Amino acid sequence: MKLLITGGAGFVGARLARAVLARGTLAGAKIDKLVLADQFAPPADLLADPRVEARTGALLAQATGLGDEGFDGVFHLASAVSGECEADFELGQRSNLDTTRALLDAFRLTGKAPRFVFSSSIAVFGPDPAVPLPPVVTDTTLPTPQTSYGMQKLICEHLVADYTRKGYLDGRAARLATVAVRPGRPNGAASSFFSGIIREPLAGEEAICPVSPEVSHPVSSPARTVDGLIAVYEASRAAFNGRTALNLPALNVKVSEMLDALEAVAGKAVRARVRFERDERIATIVANWPTGATATRAQALGLRPDGSFADIVRQYIADCEKAPNAAQALKGLAR
Amino acid sequence: MKLLITGGAGFVGARLARAVLARGTLAGAKIDKLVLADQFAPPADLLADPRVEARTGALLAQATGLGDEGFDGVFHLASAVSGECEADFELGQRSNLDTTRALLDAFRLTGKAPRFVFSSSIAVFGPDPAVPLPPVVTDTTLPTPQTSYGMQKLICEHLVADYTRKGYLDGRAARLATVAVRPGRPNGAASSFFSGIIREPLAGEEAICPVSPEVSHPVSSPARTVDGLIAVYEASRAAFNGRTALNLPALNVKVSEMLDALEAVAGKAVRARVRFERDERIATIVANWPTGATATRAQALGLRPDGSFADIVRQYIADCEKAPNAAQALKGLAR
Repeated sequence: MKLLITGGAGFVGARLARAVLARGTLAGAKIDKLVLADQFAPPADLLADPRVEARTGALLAQATGLGDEGFDGVFHLASAVSGECEADFELGQRSNLDTTRALLDAFRLTGKAPRFVFSSSIAVFGPDPAVPLPPVVTDTTLPTPQTSYGMQKLICEHLVADYTRKGYLDGRAARLATVAVRPGRPNGAASSFFSGIIREPLAGEEAICPVSPEVSHPVSSPARTVDGLIAVYEASRAAFNGRTALNLPALNVKVSEMLDALEAVAGKAVRARVRFERDERIATIVANWPTGATATRAQALGLRPDGSFADIVRQYIADCEKAPNAAQALKGLAR
Repeated sequence: MKLLITGGAGFVGARLARAVLARGTLAGAKIDKLVLADQFAPPADLLADPRVEARTGALLAQATGLGDEGFDGVFHLASAVSGECEADFELGQRSNLDTTRALLDAFRLTGKAPRFVFSSSIAVFGPDPAVPLPPVVTDTTLPTPQTSYGMQKLICEHLVADYTRKGYLDGRAARLATVAVRPGRPNGAASSFFSGIIREPLAGEEAICPVSPEVSHPVSSPARTVDGLIAVYEASRAAFNGRTALNLPALNVKVSEMLDALEAVAGKAVRARVRFERDERIATIVANWPTGATATRAQALGLRPDGSFADIVRQYIADCEKAPNAAQALKGLAR
């Protein structure tokens, strides 16, 4: 089978690619070819796999060509992130809305109806005066997004559902919680600091937390997130249960609890590198996100949230230890 | 003030235009110019008003030009209807999604943030396995549309909300119930028969009802629908209460009750012209619509549903009596 991952050179995309290649099959079909479409080239270890091909460039321009390639399965992860969509409205509309629509139409016109997993986000949820946001959102909470990113994700959920109803795709939309801990540098996501306050102190650097320690947020480790995407892909239509998007499992955790876990795993000195300095732009975006999420339908697929935030910190440290830059990434960790 | 009505030559659009011209003002501002944009020319009585100008042609091609005209207010009613969107997916995507997006962007780029009423539909609601449809939908029922038309309307609701949040528009989306009784010929809407089973018998013609007499549906008279659109336009932002779409008031009524009302107003012989003959395509679409709706937020704006379906039948007869073709339209009505 031929599989496509858009955003396949990104952090979650590359991790998903490695997981899929290691398994060798998806939903019982052998992976013969894995195409990674991204604006950047994929990591070298992925390019070294003979099954992998890269399609590097803007996805919008590639959509028709990708449709013509005749994929059996697609993970559509490519997306502009929340902070940049809020700062540059047209970028978000183009990257998240027009690009997804172009991809959906390209696959529709092939008539092959590939299995298609769309990575949506808990950012679809937000408070509106007439629709108060419950502290913990469920699969059936009414989404009234309060960011352009959330609006774009929600719209794509509904496009995927209708293209599926029409038989153009076998689509499934899954709402990801904030993925932490991400390696590397901060990105344009308003949620980027949830990784930064763990990653930077472990690297021996100071980190700034732009929101109060009392802020609660649903998070998921990279490994559990990838497990979720694969399980959603492999679910039968009956097991997915309808065409409406589902929430992936998340650990609902306060910033203070994240830092407690960091201290428990890595020590007081590491935690002490986190400084609180409110950033009004970030804090406003985060205040309009849910403070927790449940994932009943995903649980029915056998998925579970991470056991604890300490587990998430340990997963990050273990990942760093396997990476070539381990010494740099864990410079702040006393051994 | 300069006002635009898209779909302004259509039945609801022309009726709204007449109501607005008769009032002379909207939200306290005098109507200096009313532009009716439609693929057809407006009725002669509207064109005869010196304040009225027509822009006839495809709306998608006109969007940029309309943006440049600098409107203070917009009613965006133009839409492909449910049945045709189900039969021709690309038509619906172009007419309902691309056209609305093009209009929104045209107004965004002017920087004038006009007041913008979007006519959505209770067709946004539908049953999905994981999200059962309540018998009566409310303002906060989770929409999981089961027609492409409903999906397109829902997506536009979210676009309007986000363009409003960003300050590009002062947008308000209102979900119309099925408008009955519509004059003239049947149209491509799957709901067209709700008018046909009243209109045709009154004209002395046989009508076919494609669904069971037990089918219940939310309906609204043309007059109440126009009242609703105007009230939504005139509401302050605080009174509109957020940016999420609201339901307009509807009378929740069974087909059998509609026919009882027809008999009460027009006699047994008129009712006897309705024959039941199930149409699977129509019945399937209708089965995926809500059987009733409430409209709490619209009620807070002072809006109410029609008093009874008999009132709706009488409103239609009274309208026909004022029209030039009264004799033809009411040929079946014994006097």
